[in-house]
Amino acid sequence: VSQFGKVAIAGVGLIGGSFALALRKKRAVERIVGTGRSAATLARARELGIIDESAASIADAVEGARIVLIAAPVAQTEAILAAIRPHLGPGTIVTDAGSTKSDVVASARRALGDKIGQFVPGHPIAGRELNGPDAAIPDLYCGKKVILTPLAENSAQDVACIGAAWEACGAKIHRLTPEEHDRVFAAVSHLPHLLAYALVDDIAGKPHADLLFQYAASGFRDFTRIAGSSPEMWRDITLANSAALLKELDAYLAQLQSLRGHLVSGNGAAIEAVYANAQRARLNWSASIEATENQARQGGD
Amino acid sequence: VSQFGKVAIAGVGLIGGSFALALRKKRAVERIVGTGRSAATLARARELGIIDESAASIADAVEGARIVLIAAPVAQTEAILAAIRPHLGPGTIVTDAGSTKSDVVASARRALGDKIGQFVPGHPIAGRELNGPDAAIPDLYCGKKVILTPLAENSAQDVACIGAAWEACGAKIHRLTPEEHDRVFAAVSHLPHLLAYALVDDIAGKPHADLLFQYAASGFRDFTRIAGSSPEMWRDITLANSAALLKELDAYLAQLQSLRGHLVSGNGAAIEAVYANAQRARLNWSASIEATENQARQGGD
Repeated sequence: VSQFGKVAIAGVGLIGGSFALALRKKRAVERIVGTGRSAATLARARELGIIDESAASIADAVEGARIVLIAAPVAQTEAILAAIRPHLGPGTIVTDAGSTKSDVVASARRALGDKIGQFVPGHPIAGRELNGPDAAIPDLYCGKKVILTPLAENSAQDVACIGAAWEACGAKIHRLTPEEHDRVFAAVSHLPHLLAYALVDDIAGKPHADLLFQYAASGFRDFTRIAGSSPEMWRDITLANSAALLKELDAYLAQLQSLRGHLVSGNGAAIEAVYANAQRARLNWSASIEATENQARQGGD
Repeated sequence: VSQFGKVAIAGVGLIGGSFALALRKKRAVERIVGTGRSAATLARARELGIIDESAASIADAVEGARIVLIAAPVAQTEAILAAIRPHLGPGTIVTDAGSTKSDVVASARRALGDKIGQFVPGHPIAGRELNGPDAAIPDLYCGKKVILTPLAENSAQDVACIGAAWEACGAKIHRLTPEEHDRVFAAVSHLPHLLAYALVDDIAGKPHADLLFQYAASGFRDFTRIAGSSPEMWRDITLANSAALLKELDAYLAQLQSLRGHLVSGNGAAIEAVYANAQRARLNWSASIEATENQARQGGD
């Protein structure tokens, strides 16, 4: 008997599909059932061997599943949970892969009511530039972090079970509160996305935009790579985490105003101090990231 | 007889060294003489075959040279030109590789006086993450842009000669005025550097910086890669181009304030419009870059 029996996945794209492929590769699952809005995507996921079948209804998908993973855009989470609730038996744990957590938890409380204890919120820190079931790969989560933000109502066993499923995918489990999670990702992910989108939109709107783009080089390419991400997905994340994001944006605006003052007064020492501190922090960070990645490649811990 | 005879290079690091190696590979030069502040760097450049000899004096370096390339930090350009002037014969053209042009032209006018016609300002758009003579490679400029910002005092032949030298390195010549150049690079290079440094410094200064860096992932890595650049070099560029940079910074601050307003009012449609416009522009730009690079690889034009 495999570790997780039946698993249901709502949203069989890159994130949900890679979860399925990883569990399958580890022989940790008996049967994977998919559900989602697009019949074509579900058919493709079956063709690719990601799911065994697409569920005829949400009731069929959830029935007898050990784990239900919601891997759909964050704005759909509440509707999916509301549809799941009437069919949610006591042996099933629901988790998600959303990029924000406080709003997902609030949605889950509204949608699941007294079954909230069966929802263990999660966020895998992994991705590719591609999307959809064709982009799914079994190694997407290898060596990557998955953050769980357990609720007071969750049982320790249920949290451990979701952790074990992600570990079977090769991921490392971290725990934060939903609020900690949202504060951290506002700073290191949501704000950078907003800043990159803002810069490219700013440049694209100038009368000499063509001239500017003509001379943009590799530094610009790296800086703005995340502005190639899905506008709908990032609109949802921006709105879902707007409180934490506003705090980070305001701190950043204060930092830019301070640098602006140094520019106006020609204060080279102050400018260099900011740049040098940033360079030092950036080099330390990238060195530690590389050390971790090398360890992971060598099969270490 | 080779095309350029004797070439002198002030600053034999990545930029100057790669220029030397490229000319040598093309057999476009007879003798390359190096000069610079560090005897160790000059010795290393000789070991690596970048230069034939290090000049005993600036007079020796300039004497009989067809081209003198200044490839030192921008803040040193004026002092180097002032040292060159007394030894600058009529058959020698001086050029530079500085990342800003208006300030370099102003320095050159002060330092060279009535010999200003012999200075053809330039800026090769190429680089690597490494520095120094060991980082120099003959192909650094292959398929890359070199921007010349000729002066009214330059002769057409001298501008053509400097263009031919960079073309011998595999580069494509573009022409802008110094003011156009600085406006363009303020937007697509200098501002992104300032923004990336500001973000990393902002995060590094927070009490929970370690937690934040722990969860920073590949989007953050790309966005902040340029914050690993030399603080001294970028302090100089920031100060040298502060007028154009301030204009770009202010436009960007206005853009961020507008987005901030949409965040506060929860205006998802307005946020998505900015993000979608940026994504479209970014994808168009990267598609055109890739097309150009593919053409270059296929030996096309």
